Amino acid sequence: MSDTLYYVGLDVGGTTMKAGVVDDTGKPSSSVSLPTEPHRGQEFGLERMCETIRKAVATNGLRMEQIAAIGVATPGTMDIPGGLILDPPNLKPWRNVPVRQHVQDAFEIPTAFQNDANAAAYGEYWSGAGKGVHSMVLFTLGTGVGGGIVVGDHVVEGEHSHGAELGHMKIEMTAPRLCGCGRYGCLEAYASATSVVARAREALASYAAQSALGALAEKGDALTARAIFDVAAAGDALADRIVEETAYYLAIGTTNMLHIIDPNMVVFGGGMIAAGEPFLERIRRHVRRLAFPVPAEKAKIRYAQLGSDAGFIGAAACARQLHKRKSS
Amino acid sequence: MSDTLYYVGLDVGGTTMKAGVVDDTGKPSSSVSLPTEPHRGQEFGLERMCETIRKAVATNGLRMEQIAAIGVATPGTMDIPGGLILDPPNLKPWRNVPVRQHVQDAFEIPTAFQNDANAAAYGEYWSGAGKGVHSMVLFTLGTGVGGGIVVGDHVVEGEHSHGAELGHMKIEMTAPRLCGCGRYGCLEAYASATSVVARAREALASYAAQSALGALAEKGDALTARAIFDVAAAGDALADRIVEETAYYLAIGTTNMLHIIDPNMVVFGGGMIAAGEPFLERIRRHVRRLAFPVPAEKAKIRYAQLGSDAGFIGAAACARQLHKRKSS
Repeated sequence: MSDTLYYVGLDVGGTTMKAGVVDDTGKPSSSVSLPTEPHRGQEFGLERMCETIRKAVATNGLRMEQIAAIGVATPGTMDIPGGLILDPPNLKPWRNVPVRQHVQDAFEIPTAFQNDANAAAYGEYWSGAGKGVHSMVLFTLGTGVGGGIVVGDHVVEGEHSHGAELGHMKIEMTAPRLCGCGRYGCLEAYASATSVVARAREALASYAAQSALGALAEKGDALTARAIFDVAAAGDALADRIVEETAYYLAIGTTNMLHIIDPNMVVFGGGMIAAGEPFLERIRRHVRRLAFPVPAEKAKIRYAQLGSDAGFIGAAACARQLHKRKSS
Repeated sequence: MSDTLYYVGLDVGGTTMKAGVVDDTGKPSSSVSLPTEPHRGQEFGLERMCETIRKAVATNGLRMEQIAAIGVATPGTMDIPGGLILDPPNLKPWRNVPVRQHVQDAFEIPTAFQNDANAAAYGEYWSGAGKGVHSMVLFTLGTGVGGGIVVGDHVVEGEHSHGAELGHMKIEMTAPRLCGCGRYGCLEAYASATSVVARAREALASYAAQSALGALAEKGDALTARAIFDVAAAGDALADRIVEETAYYLAIGTTNMLHIIDPNMVVFGGGMIAAGEPFLERIRRHVRRLAFPVPAEKAKIRYAQLGSDAGFIGAAACARQLHKRKSS
């Protein structure tokens, strides 16, 4: 029998859950995805989690006895130290689900529990964009803006499981936009994919010249953040303005993290990273103007590297951390 | 000879430096202050630091051999791991001053080095308002807005000595105020004592009714943040508006820290705390509206307790941390 240490990470999302085995060096093997189907209830959900973990281990030709620890990442709201999902908007009708205890009892293997965005940050820190740095901040750009902070192998999860809710830092007081959280002025209300589309629709309404965004807007679902970035890259002036403003908003968020955490690296993940290096360069340009010279020059600004695997890899990293603590 | 462990903390400011002995439980004994006189040059300054430390030890009837470690806190800019003051605006003409090495060589005692606001936060965490909590954020309200973050006995000093520069988080984009740092939209530009006075002068200029602030403004130096808070407490409507807005700005800063660090406690220090409990209650009220319900309800919002001793006590806490690391 090999001495290699293996960990299983499970990333539970509103639509699918994904599990994979990761070795002690952070190298993932092939992963398994199953539909979450939250409407079938939380008992079903807990069993589905175990099934996904079991399949991930079997797919890789391993036995459960070879797994040193398991990590599970879920969306909030949650009680991280308690191992509970509380009242997650993306997993209705689940409520107060004892995820960690259930998984740990099912397999009799030590199990770690973490918020999904924190896990993604820890995954990128362990074996993605942040590999080798001491501290890293992640912004994930999707329907919302998620975040994770890792400093010296410590995930900043906060005392009440609200650490690194970076989409909900306030960046505007005079004319604050309404955020998906029901409050005003949050970064997410400016820089999420959803907000990019909302801002494009508003800009179109008062735009006199021609823009390729007009035709997209009339087709309903065709006006996506991705389409706006594509049209901007093709030279559309209005789309370019929306993209430039998005870079500015993200630079404000980045600057705040440089002045609060002062990490080695700020990483952007999520669908918007398809915009490529030119978009990152726009963010960097604004940061150089907005931030103190030293962190603006020294902090690296990069894209995430693990894609949608970051969550399960980070969950496995949490499992590894738990295992190392128990072994030391 | 007693087994008690003693540490010396030295807090270097632009006008005076203050040193005191602190025991292993965080209890400070009497302190010594000497003028910094930065204009006399950095060689003089380094010798003055040693003199202040020596006097603090002698005043308390101790010998240097009884000191387990020394901690020195200074204003920025600085290289914390390198033990250097770089180019501090409040200590001109000092430049690239090897503070830690000099003090350590002079006494042959292990010496720690920290930013003054970080040290103040660590002091309040160790033996002031934050005693017993796991994590704490400090805002110091003076000429500027300083900050410190402590999570699990770890001071968030950042990778480039720019951690917890909380006065320079951006909170406004549409009509951003000019900050003392030369950039725009920083919290400091809204909520420092200096900014409170500037905002009061602006408000007076467009205020039609009578306000007691008018007479103060004509007397030049009489319009201070303290005076504005006093006049507000006496019922002046315009002054009350300025105070209320200040509470709102600080609540924005607090909310951002609840959503980024999610600490057990947020502490306010500096001259403005003379405004007392009613001002803190105004901040809390805004936070309950601005922040997520769980951290808004659970995080304690308090005033600092150590006054101008926080810096040297925190510097001593850094000395203690260094000693414990070396001993373990």
